[in-house]
Amino acid sequence: MKIILAYSGGLDTSIAIKWLKDKYNAEIICYTTNVGQVEDVKKLSAKAKKTGATKLYFDDLRQKFVDDYVIPSLKAGALYQDKYPLATALSRPLIVEGMVKVARKERADALAHGCTGKGNDQVRFELTTRYLSPELQVIAPVREWEFKSREDEIEYAKKHNIPTPVTKKKPYSIDWNLWGISIECGKLENPWNEPPEDAYQITVSSEKAPAKPEYITIGFEKGVPLSLNGKKMDILKLIERLTKLGGKHGVGRIDMVEDRLVGIKSREIYEAPAAVILHTAHNALEKLVFSRDLFEFKKIVSQRYSQLTYFGQWFSQIKQCLDSFVENSQRFVTGEVRIKLYKGNCIVTGRKSSYSLYSETLATYTEKDLFDHTAAKGFLEIFGLPSKLEGLREK
Amino acid sequence: MKIILAYSGGLDTSIAIKWLKDKYNAEIICYTTNVGQVEDVKKLSAKAKKTGATKLYFDDLRQKFVDDYVIPSLKAGALYQDKYPLATALSRPLIVEGMVKVARKERADALAHGCTGKGNDQVRFELTTRYLSPELQVIAPVREWEFKSREDEIEYAKKHNIPTPVTKKKPYSIDWNLWGISIECGKLENPWNEPPEDAYQITVSSEKAPAKPEYITIGFEKGVPLSLNGKKMDILKLIERLTKLGGKHGVGRIDMVEDRLVGIKSREIYEAPAAVILHTAHNALEKLVFSRDLFEFKKIVSQRYSQLTYFGQWFSQIKQCLDSFVENSQRFVTGEVRIKLYKGNCIVTGRKSSYSLYSETLATYTEKDLFDHTAAKGFLEIFGLPSKLEGLREK
Amino acid sequence: MKIILAYSGGLDTSIAIKWLKDKYNAEIICYTTNVGQVEDVKKLSAKAKKTGATKLYFDDLRQKFVDDYVIPSLKAGALYQDKYPLATALSRPLIVEGMVKVARKERADALAHGCTGKGNDQVRFELTTRYLSPELQVIAPVREWEFKSREDEIEYAKKHNIPTPVTKKKPYSIDWNLWGISIECGKLENPWNEPPEDAYQITVSSEKAPAKPEYITIGFEKGVPLSLNGKKMDILKLIERLTKLGGKHGVGRIDMVEDRLVGIKSREIYEAPAAVILHTAHNALEKLVFSRDLFEFKKIVSQRYSQLTYFGQWFSQIKQCLDSFVENSQRFVTGEVRIKLYKGNCIVTGRKSSYSLYSETLATYTEKDLFDHTAAKGFLEIFGLPSKLEGLREK
Amino acid sequence: MKIILAYSGGLDTSIAIKWLKDKYNAEIICYTTNVGQVEDVKKLSAKAKKTGATKLYFDDLRQKFVDDYVIPSLKAGALYQDKYPLATALSRPLIVEGMVKVARKERADALAHGCTGKGNDQVRFELTTRYLSPELQVIAPVREWEFKSREDEIEYAKKHNIPTPVTKKKPYSIDWNLWGISIECGKLENPWNEPPEDAYQITVSSEKAPAKPEYITIGFEKGVPLSLNGKKMDILKLIERLTKLGGKHGVGRIDMVEDRLVGIKSREIYEAPAAVILHTAHNALEKLVFSRDLFEFKKIVSQRYSQLTYFGQWFSQIKQCLDSFVENSQRFVTGEVRIKLYKGNCIVTGRKSSYSLYSETLATYTEKDLFDHTAAKGFLEIFGLPSKLEGLREK
Repeated sequence: MKIILAYSGGLDTSIAIKWLKDKYNAEIICYTTNVGQVEDVKKLSAKAKKTGATKLYFDDLRQKFVDDYVIPSLKAGALYQDKYPLATALSRPLIVEGMVKVARKERADALAHGCTGKGNDQVRFELTTRYLSPELQVIAPVREWEFKSREDEIEYAKKHNIPTPVTKKKPYSIDWNLWGISIECGKLENPWNEPPEDAYQITVSSEKAPAKPEYITIGFEKGVPLSLNGKKMDILKLIERLTKLGGKHGVGRIDMVEDRLVGIKSREIYEAPAAVILHTAHNALEKLVFSRDLFEFKKIVSQRYSQLTYFGQWFSQIKQCLDSFVENSQRFVTGEVRIKLYKGNCIVTGRKSSYSLYSETLATYTEKDLFDHTAAKGFLEIFGLPSKLEGLREK
Repeated sequence: MKIILAYSGGLDTSIAIKWLKDKYNAEIICYTTNVGQVEDVKKLSAKAKKTGATKLYFDDLRQKFVDDYVIPSLKAGALYQDKYPLATALSRPLIVEGMVKVARKERADALAHGCTGKGNDQVRFELTTRYLSPELQVIAPVREWEFKSREDEIEYAKKHNIPTPVTKKKPYSIDWNLWGISIECGKLENPWNEPPEDAYQITVSSEKAPAKPEYITIGFEKGVPLSLNGKKMDILKLIERLTKLGGKHGVGRIDMVEDRLVGIKSREIYEAPAAVILHTAHNALEKLVFSRDLFEFKKIVSQRYSQLTYFGQWFSQIKQCLDSFVENSQRFVTGEVRIKLYKGNCIVTGRKSSYSLYSETLATYTEKDLFDHTAAKGFLEIFGLPSKLEGLREK
Repeated sequence: MKIILAYSGGLDTSIAIKWLKDKYNAEIICYTTNVGQVEDVKKLSAKAKKTGATKLYFDDLRQKFVDDYVIPSLKAGALYQDKYPLATALSRPLIVEGMVKVARKERADALAHGCTGKGNDQVRFELTTRYLSPELQVIAPVREWEFKSREDEIEYAKKHNIPTPVTKKKPYSIDWNLWGISIECGKLENPWNEPPEDAYQITVSSEKAPAKPEYITIGFEKGVPLSLNGKKMDILKLIERLTKLGGKHGVGRIDMVEDRLVGIKSREIYEAPAAVILHTAHNALEKLVFSRDLFEFKKIVSQRYSQLTYFGQWFSQIKQCLDSFVENSQRFVTGEVRIKLYKGNCIVTGRKSSYSLYSETLATYTEKDLFDHTAAKGFLEIFGLPSKLEGLREK
Repeated sequence: MKIILAYSGGLDTSIAIKWLKDKYNAEIICYTTNVGQVEDVKKLSAKAKKTGATKLYFDDLRQKFVDDYVIPSLKAGALYQDKYPLATALSRPLIVEGMVKVARKERADALAHGCTGKGNDQVRFELTTRYLSPELQVIAPVREWEFKSREDEIEYAKKHNIPTPVTKKKPYSIDWNLWGISIECGKLENPWNEPPEDAYQITVSSEKAPAKPEYITIGFEKGVPLSLNGKKMDILKLIERLTKLGGKHGVGRIDMVEDRLVGIKSREIYEAPAAVILHTAHNALEKLVFSRDLFEFKKIVSQRYSQLTYFGQWFSQIKQCLDSFVENSQRFVTGEVRIKLYKGNCIVTGRKSSYSLYSETLATYTEKDLFDHTAAKGFLEIFGLPSKLEGLREK
């Protein structure tokens, strides 16, 4: 049997190599990607092999991540439960796409991942596999094995000469990619506790942010952010730039109690400076170029889109249909948005577009006004008819 | 003919007295309320009479406003286009309720208001009247009269000895009540312009806010805010207190391009410190005590509720049905939320409730974990079936 | 250990008595209800005891079924995937309510049911128990036991002297209550097959229905059907009467491919003459007394309501909130609907209500017309503004 | 001034020629189309000229109507208020498209139509013009002129030598195209009256329909109906064929009270045999190939789509976005549906598709069953968690 294992080099996936090998009498091939976190591939590869893997595949998926996952979700306005930009959720189907390719090349029988039985990632991992390659088995060692605690795992590692991290267990569980960071566990598990400063990895606190605001201008073309302060910029670079800028100004921290797919609530901390800035700007631009009808309906689309992404249903016909809706809606989302970053605030201070439906001559209260005020009488007569009919009935 | 005129003492409604009197050969009775703005009733009354009104009715509607309009809208999570807490929109049906009572007492034939033909307020005014008292005529002098500019109006005022404001025309048009302030016109009419500081009435800028954050705790019972920092407090007082606190910390500024009912977009600035703090806290508490299903469906209810309020359909059977939904949903919205106010930020740092659906023993990754991880396998088997079936079909 | 078993007297639940007794070393108490099907309680009781049960509880729940389940679902317009009136789905939480009461009285430890692992009924059974009595265990013998086929079960029955049905296995699996009948299996499993006539239990075919149409008039009060052809009638009786009438005219057959909760599609035949007639009439009356806004929003409520019922979430806060919405919406659903029953057709031929929002003087094209046609110009000016703005942009 | 008038040859548009000519001192060019009704173009042209028009343009738009309007609306499942297939609503923007082309060619200044001020057609007419050609004026003589009754109009006609119909006024107002017929007025204005048989134009009554059912099979490819009983058929022909077949069997009659855009309810009778058959078949096929998620979401899309069409917003960005959603959703709507036509009934008796998500091996209760029943336990554990948590809270 041949198994492709999503490998991070941490304790769980390290002992998973040995455990899978023994339990399934299998050859283990590791798979690692760069989706924005920092990794030393050579070290990882050596470590994987030392622990018993035959080889390690490494893919730099950053560009694909941005093009095929991040930008579509930005266009869709996908924020789970109004807040979470879905960084981790978006990366999972991407990683599985990569693993399935390797599995085909290697003629493997199964994929394996290090997710627990109560999280969302197992769902994303397994549903994506079912869709892309229903014939592949999916194995989740952490859900299956006998270890009850980190101590059990370390003991197993020592017994089998698996290199274990020297450092003490970190107080938080962290997932990291270019679109954002997820932080759980420790003191955060009590939703009444304020998140300690040491939980945050890439943003300063509002208090420590610079005393002077910084104004930036983001340019969009058909919903895609393409320039910063008037300069064209590659999207991947733009995201990295905004991550730094936002982080410096304390922008992008999210603290929420959210509903997992598996029926429980969890308290999550996210850091997503670029995502927060870009969603804010993108939404402000849509408000300028969307009709009210389109704006209201797209909210329903966004809500569903974010659920599907969060629930691991990125690959599904309904999501593809929503993408078609979204793509068409972006036709006029071209223009600029000015943002003020200041001590945790990310505030839109201006927006413009050559496709704007805002018309100063219709909106103004000056003598330039072109709005036909006399039309209101007839409009209200008819728009108010149902109120009148219901009012008469109440008597 | 007898006309009840919604009277503010400003230029428009002042000349409306004379204009209506002449045009409709009518007796004019003025009607003014206190919904949180500061007014000198005696002066207003004297002024109205001097301008030709028979009398002036004055109602202090603050308590009724809070009980019948503000709190229901807070429970409903009603934010128009995700942002505007609807302060002005909520006050209009309240005022009409008062006017209709006066009209009945006075056996009047018509109500009159000073709204223009392109705004939302005319809609709220007229639809409410149609519902509450379909037999009353509604007159909108500003939509009908011949004056083309403020200068025309002043000339008319002088000619008829109507006292005109000494001061220069203010650069903004402002509406004020205890739930928030609306600011339009002037430089704001270009949505690319950053709002000048002088547009804001009750909030300082983030830059001028105190250098030290302030933590407050708001207690709710069935969705109603009832305490501040552990002390019970009358809701009206609580709102006033939060307005000051928020204003001091630069919290509650809203800058948006919004869709009016009459088919145009307008750029609006709002200041609503209490509304922003209370909606933020209330939403965080709901996230703790609502199931995912309830949370997701209530978003649809909130969206519709805010539209109906904004569109002047506060009195309508559908709104009443939504109220029933909302009221039932608040059964467990009891608990406390801790908020950090700091330089424009209003951040939830903790939430708790004895009705919380968050369970630390289910959510934790420590050994206290009670979640049954083995259930995941079966769950994913079944939840993932449609993915598998769609995946097979794609081949 | 003490187990309350939902008992039908069929093969599955008969051998379940013995199987549970042995496997769990338990005392088995049977529970049976009348929800509209025909049962001989004495025989059932004797049979249960002979098979090893300690006793059998029997509840006639017809009235409670109608009052607490059927009528609320009718008011809600609950038709799963637009068609299925949810007869079986509604009866499951009712039965569990009854079993939980017995379990408390008997201080039992568990409930058991005879549902399979791929149907919807297990879900309704288990979710209701979790909500009403989370401390009770739920056992599903059919999902657990070793029998692979009906033959295995019969062998086990013979071996243990369990009386088995003399008759051959019926070609269909049927569930029966006063709100409707569900029919599955056999030739129906191929959705291309036309349902054979012998699948239907209470309706004649259109071809065999009388050659003369029959007109009936149903009267509603606040959404509740209370009279037939002008005569007040007890609801339970009314439903029985309409079941016969509809059945006679071939009305109430439903043939659909539906989506189960467990991720698969199934082909189901339903017979629900009373449900089809009453939903049709109720909907026609709502169209007369609801505003367009209410009608459109209630469709969303109906869709969600039917899902929750189908998915076993009858007991849930969101369902209670939807009930509040629905209850309020029925305030004016009072009036009469005339229905023509003829060879499978159930056609509304007239509707009237003293709360109708239909106004002949507004709708007519005769000289009685009171509609203000001149208002249309202003209305269209404003309602058409967004079209104009989008049109201008396209150029 | 040059005006393009939508001309039917009836009384209203006949006197409109003269009236417009005089009132606007204009040249009148008539425009007529064939959208499925029967017209004698030569006669019409002669009549128009005799009445004062310069010329008459005639377009046979049947193919364009089917391709650009009917089929997209079928794919969208667009039934206004669940019933009306929108025949008239769909034809209006089509006709305006044609008129705008003529207006450009003729360098005309305005379009004119014969719609009243309380109907929906004026809205469709004027909104489409605003979108396609915002610079064109729209004139609605019937809303403007002085005639109070048909008698006034006839008098005016006689005075000006305009040929008037010899026949008595028909008891109904009828609009006719290949997708369906709308019938209003007369006895229908009382929604309690059963529609008289003489109101129907192309369908027989159920009573008079043949005593033998007729089975037909319709084949779809990506949502488009392309064959009848296994034979490929041009869509336009297919619609004509189904219109006859349905009409013969009494299929396609719709009797409803509906909500007009202008705030009133009206009672409408429609005859749409082809539309009813095709929507029924198309929906049944979607149920076979759509996932539950897609099916449920598309209902929301259908509801919105039908509103936009009914409200005259066919040309709008939101409708285009919905079209993109719909188009993508049709990818697998390929297969066959068998329909039984019998005395007013249109019943699906079978459906099949090579893209079906129905799996007999998953659905069956025979030994061919491949569904993993043991998965249910874990599934219910997790899916039922919220029920358990809410249940615990209730205590």
